[in-house]
Amino acid sequence: MSIPMNDLGVVKRNIIRADKAAVEKLSRFGVATIHEAMGRVGLMLPYMRPIYSSAKACGPAVTVLLQPGDNWMMHVVAEQLQPGDVVVAACTAENTDGFFGDLLATSFRARGAKGLVIDGGVRDVADLTEMQFPVFSRAISAKGTVKATLGSVNIPVVCAGALVNPGDVVIADVDGVVVVPAGVAQQVADAAEAREANEGEKRAKLAAGVLGLDMYKMREPLAKAGLRYID
Amino acid sequence: MSIPMNDLGVVKRNIIRADKAAVEKLSRFGVATIHEAMGRVGLMLPYMRPIYSSAKACGPAVTVLLQPGDNWMMHVVAEQLQPGDVVVAACTAENTDGFFGDLLATSFRARGAKGLVIDGGVRDVADLTEMQFPVFSRAISAKGTVKATLGSVNIPVVCAGALVNPGDVVIADVDGVVVVPAGVAQQVADAAEAREANEGEKRAKLAAGVLGLDMYKMREPLAKAGLRYID
Amino acid sequence: MSIPMNDLGVVKRNIIRADKAAVEKLSRFGVATIHEAMGRVGLMLPYMRPIYSSAKACGPAVTVLLQPGDNWMMHVVAEQLQPGDVVVAACTAENTDGFFGDLLATSFRARGAKGLVIDGGVRDVADLTEMQFPVFSRAISAKGTVKATLGSVNIPVVCAGALVNPGDVVIADVDGVVVVPAGVAQQVADAAEAREANEGEKRAKLAAGVLGLDMYKMREPLAKAGLRYID
Amino acid sequence: MSIPMNDLGVVKRNIIRADKAAVEKLSRFGVATIHEAMGRVGLMLPYMRPIYSSAKACGPAVTVLLQPGDNWMMHVVAEQLQPGDVVVAACTAENTDGFFGDLLATSFRARGAKGLVIDGGVRDVADLTEMQFPVFSRAISAKGTVKATLGSVNIPVVCAGALVNPGDVVIADVDGVVVVPAGVAQQVADAAEAREANEGEKRAKLAAGVLGLDMYKMREPLAKAGLRYID
Amino acid sequence: MSIPMNDLGVVKRNIIRADKAAVEKLSRFGVATIHEAMGRVGLMLPYMRPIYSSAKACGPAVTVLLQPGDNWMMHVVAEQLQPGDVVVAACTAENTDGFFGDLLATSFRARGAKGLVIDGGVRDVADLTEMQFPVFSRAISAKGTVKATLGSVNIPVVCAGALVNPGDVVIADVDGVVVVPAGVAQQVADAAEAREANEGEKRAKLAAGVLGLDMYKMREPLAKAGLRYID
Amino acid sequence: MSIPMNDLGVVKRNIIRADKAAVEKLSRFGVATIHEAMGRVGLMLPYMRPIYSSAKACGPAVTVLLQPGDNWMMHVVAEQLQPGDVVVAACTAENTDGFFGDLLATSFRARGAKGLVIDGGVRDVADLTEMQFPVFSRAISAKGTVKATLGSVNIPVVCAGALVNPGDVVIADVDGVVVVPAGVAQQVADAAEAREANEGEKRAKLAAGVLGLDMYKMREPLAKAGLRYID
Repeated sequence: MSIPMNDLGVVKRNIIRADKAAVEKLSRFGVATIHEAMGRVGLMLPYMRPIYSSAKACGPAVTVLLQPGDNWMMHVVAEQLQPGDVVVAACTAENTDGFFGDLLATSFRARGAKGLVIDGGVRDVADLTEMQFPVFSRAISAKGTVKATLGSVNIPVVCAGALVNPGDVVIADVDGVVVVPAGVAQQVADAAEAREANEGEKRAKLAAGVLGLDMYKMREPLAKAGLRYID
Repeated sequence: MSIPMNDLGVVKRNIIRADKAAVEKLSRFGVATIHEAMGRVGLMLPYMRPIYSSAKACGPAVTVLLQPGDNWMMHVVAEQLQPGDVVVAACTAENTDGFFGDLLATSFRARGAKGLVIDGGVRDVADLTEMQFPVFSRAISAKGTVKATLGSVNIPVVCAGALVNPGDVVIADVDGVVVVPAGVAQQVADAAEAREANEGEKRAKLAAGVLGLDMYKMREPLAKAGLRYID
Repeated sequence: MSIPMNDLGVVKRNIIRADKAAVEKLSRFGVATIHEAMGRVGLMLPYMRPIYSSAKACGPAVTVLLQPGDNWMMHVVAEQLQPGDVVVAACTAENTDGFFGDLLATSFRARGAKGLVIDGGVRDVADLTEMQFPVFSRAISAKGTVKATLGSVNIPVVCAGALVNPGDVVIADVDGVVVVPAGVAQQVADAAEAREANEGEKRAKLAAGVLGLDMYKMREPLAKAGLRYID
Repeated sequence: MSIPMNDLGVVKRNIIRADKAAVEKLSRFGVATIHEAMGRVGLMLPYMRPIYSSAKACGPAVTVLLQPGDNWMMHVVAEQLQPGDVVVAACTAENTDGFFGDLLATSFRARGAKGLVIDGGVRDVADLTEMQFPVFSRAISAKGTVKATLGSVNIPVVCAGALVNPGDVVIADVDGVVVVPAGVAQQVADAAEAREANEGEKRAKLAAGVLGLDMYKMREPLAKAGLRYID
Repeated sequence: MSIPMNDLGVVKRNIIRADKAAVEKLSRFGVATIHEAMGRVGLMLPYMRPIYSSAKACGPAVTVLLQPGDNWMMHVVAEQLQPGDVVVAACTAENTDGFFGDLLATSFRARGAKGLVIDGGVRDVADLTEMQFPVFSRAISAKGTVKATLGSVNIPVVCAGALVNPGDVVIADVDGVVVVPAGVAQQVADAAEAREANEGEKRAKLAAGVLGLDMYKMREPLAKAGLRYID
Repeated sequence: MSIPMNDLGVVKRNIIRADKAAVEKLSRFGVATIHEAMGRVGLMLPYMRPIYSSAKACGPAVTVLLQPGDNWMMHVVAEQLQPGDVVVAACTAENTDGFFGDLLATSFRARGAKGLVIDGGVRDVADLTEMQFPVFSRAISAKGTVKATLGSVNIPVVCAGALVNPGDVVIADVDGVVVVPAGVAQQVADAAEAREANEGEKRAKLAAGVLGLDMYKMREPLAKAGLRYID
């Protein structure tokens, strides 16, 4: 899966998207739950934030690699979108320019996209919020970009510290953005479901005043680890 | 008050909480007012932000020292909570992992806690917001933690640049987080009250167009300092 | 226009504000549109954020240069305000202290100011939000300041990476803050209008499913640049 | 190549290292040259710095994924080292703790390791420098770590923004750290050689006063792009 | 030990410095060793860096609390210095101004000071390096400061995330800065000595090719934790 | 002096450089001294660092405005250099890419340039150090750039927070980078000289044990400000 030397300037048209049922099931859970169900891997760095606090997105990733200050490939990626997709945009350098605004959002939505995760900046945030087009980004910036240098579409990318292969499921909410490899999407969805079922009961006990110390049987391991109580 | 060598792995059960009346009085004022009343000391660094903008908390501090990526002690601290307390969580290293979510919030609330101030990350932010459980944190992150290494409870901690002794009053709102030593809580509350009384009159004058230059009699000291007006 | 050696301790009383009609026209457009109309220059760095998401401001700049931890000059600048002005506050060092709160906002508003752009911190954010006084700042911090050291008023300043001359038009919204030199305000306003007129038609096409690739005739230049489609 | 759900707690013993001759050839070139020869991809973020300015390393990557504040897996990875390897250590969270010091360096060197690239902190820097053991890290920190939680060895990792598969060639010097996929190592080495051969001649011309404008024939494209000279 | 309300504007003349023999013994060990001997507490944040890489300092702390952009108290603290002291300077806000240069260093050295640890900026770094006056700081900056606002001397301060009481031992080297409470200085020095004695033997074994896995008997606990080896 | 709308894509050929004698005189002083002599204005932000610690540069500024990830204009600026010039490179966005390396340094030196100050990244740092070509930059990065988008040469730029007009004197050393407007270069040089003359005497007194408190007659103003000594 290595990134070959000539991966800049490539658009891969056919990608294998994660199973639809698995994506749908994953969409029912929060990012924190899915991240736990994954075994605590696959999370983007916490600088990725929603542009409005209720933003949520879940779908197979269509990936794009951008050059700093250049959003040419955002137009190229639009053509590769299928209904339900989430665009994941990485950049070859740390850059906060506004690669995306309401015109591109209109185009992405017309193609059926469910949202954007971008390791860069976005603008027209008031419009995007009014459109309720969910975007998770590194920054908000009015700074426009040029259209001069090639990147790629649907190659594996590293976005905000996480590896994203085209077709992987990307789930994003106010807690962050997590990537579920397509091959384990169903398995992770099942694990998330089991975990969440479990949580209701725990919540009720804790609400009733039971301590986690007792519910999780932590007192003995804490004592073994040397915890001392003093007055 | 130095931190002794063996302070990791300790839970202090009996702490002297600041006087209830003083805490109640402090809860009526904003952080900016209290910080001024303190003589401009005791403030945490401004990276500490509320997870929702109307979040507010005021209460005696129950402190916990965490290890990076490990929230074991959050369960230990829950048992030490009394109604009205605010948990102050420091970490032995800079870390943004999600040490706290809605299950712990349910437990803390069941014990009577009024909020959490944490020099780390939190998650389940949508749920915490819906619960209206006030949290002030360094970050929001879905990243889960392990339960493997001891920290301590109710030792003096440095949280976001401020020293917090157990029992000190912690006041937090959208402007930040301030720590009032238990021994001066009443005195600071009185000073805050005096200051605020004072502010109403000032506000009215300024709203009427009186300049601060005149109201605070600044023209002479400014001239003495060498201020020159040119056209 | 160089900053002379003795520019600290100076208040310039007479400045030439940008043409009113141009300011009014600029106020109809968003920051992203104006920044594009300017040829993609004049933008402040993206760390400048509104204290509430609907905050907007547009007006001629009255500038002030502050010293770190000292807001004395904020009172001096108040006297120089005319209805419609936006205060632009720079600082001689990176500093997040709370230079501005609801009392100063009351005074600024009484003088007719339309908002504040400050490369520093502000406080009393709940009050400022309730007042709907738009502020764009580097930070929110309860930390108070002293009144001991002179800065200047209405000298050219660098604020968040952008040069601001007194009288330039400053436009701020959720996308950021842009500075339009007074001498080109009308020209930029016209360019922004032309640009926006243009956008409605584009948006309709994109919403109908036309691709940017076709609308902007990008396919040929992309192919020339070497873009390859693979399956 | 997706990271499966159960990738934490795994040590892969057999990895395919890049071809020795290609590694040797790559070791002759600087990181900037190799990055260009790769087509400007594969670079780690610039916060990765050498602990001493003459540090250099080149070799096939043996990878390790650490947990924040925990260096247990550094001992596990030591056993998997073969002469010539470079250890690449990623972490599941941003963390600057000192995961590595002179004892581990002694062990790594005894196993034949050529250096360490770590997205975390290191300590005993004076000793490491005296040993001339090249380390490239995110931070220097005396903070020690525990040995309590599993990570993995020889799985694909994201280190400082770059994807590293076990066996890829990692080249590090004062300019940064670049990753060359094993499958293209020879091809990249050849391209680097061609590039460097080319550079000597260019350098001589530039030293003689020839302008890049002329040497690279930029005048025409600049004029086409609209460059205007004024007096 | 709480910071009383009126702690700004105070100079405490008599402080109890840590035992001389303990200080001397601590000076023989590196910061990483002492931090381990302390039980992994007491470390300043890793942004504190030496101005030249061989800088080292060890001595009882004389503390000073500065205001941003103001170094008046640096002159006040000079008078309180005794031979062997290390000055620890905290600031009421994050500030990188150059509070300290070669003139103050000359004065500090004349009083017998062994170094400076400052959560702010310093300047005249070429001169300080030539003088071999060890400084550990947050930043290097030519920016000068004013002398207008009071801070305090010899009150407890939080410097770069660590609590420092006057008289505590501060040890600084290229790995960072650690604070040893005066009351446990001898105990920590003894623990550091024991630790270091221990290290020679370990180093020899590791150099001979023994693995930490075996030397520290980690194989069984790793297997218990679930580590799996695959081919 | 406002930046007109069409300032991108412009090369100004004739600029008025600061007086040679003034430049020569300024070159004798350090940045900290000159910044004080200027009245504490004109300093770049402290993230600007020399690539080797003994780097120094002083000369009239030839300015260039770059686009992120694009160094085309570096070749354009080379032609505008005259012996003694220092290139000041700003960027339209925060960007750490390696805009400059040993080939461009060879070309700049052949044209007589004395150094480079760049609000971006540089590479080939080992070669630049060996050449002793002084560079002050925001970052070191091997990341190469493209040549696709116009910026400008010899327009006023904001570099690392400081306004630089073409022809201004730029002085850089290990303490930072300061900009002296051409029109006051002689005056600042004289003030720096006076200041430095003054410093020798002060240094001698301080070395002899005289306190700044007495030498600067601070005891009375400190007492007036309310400083209290306690035991």
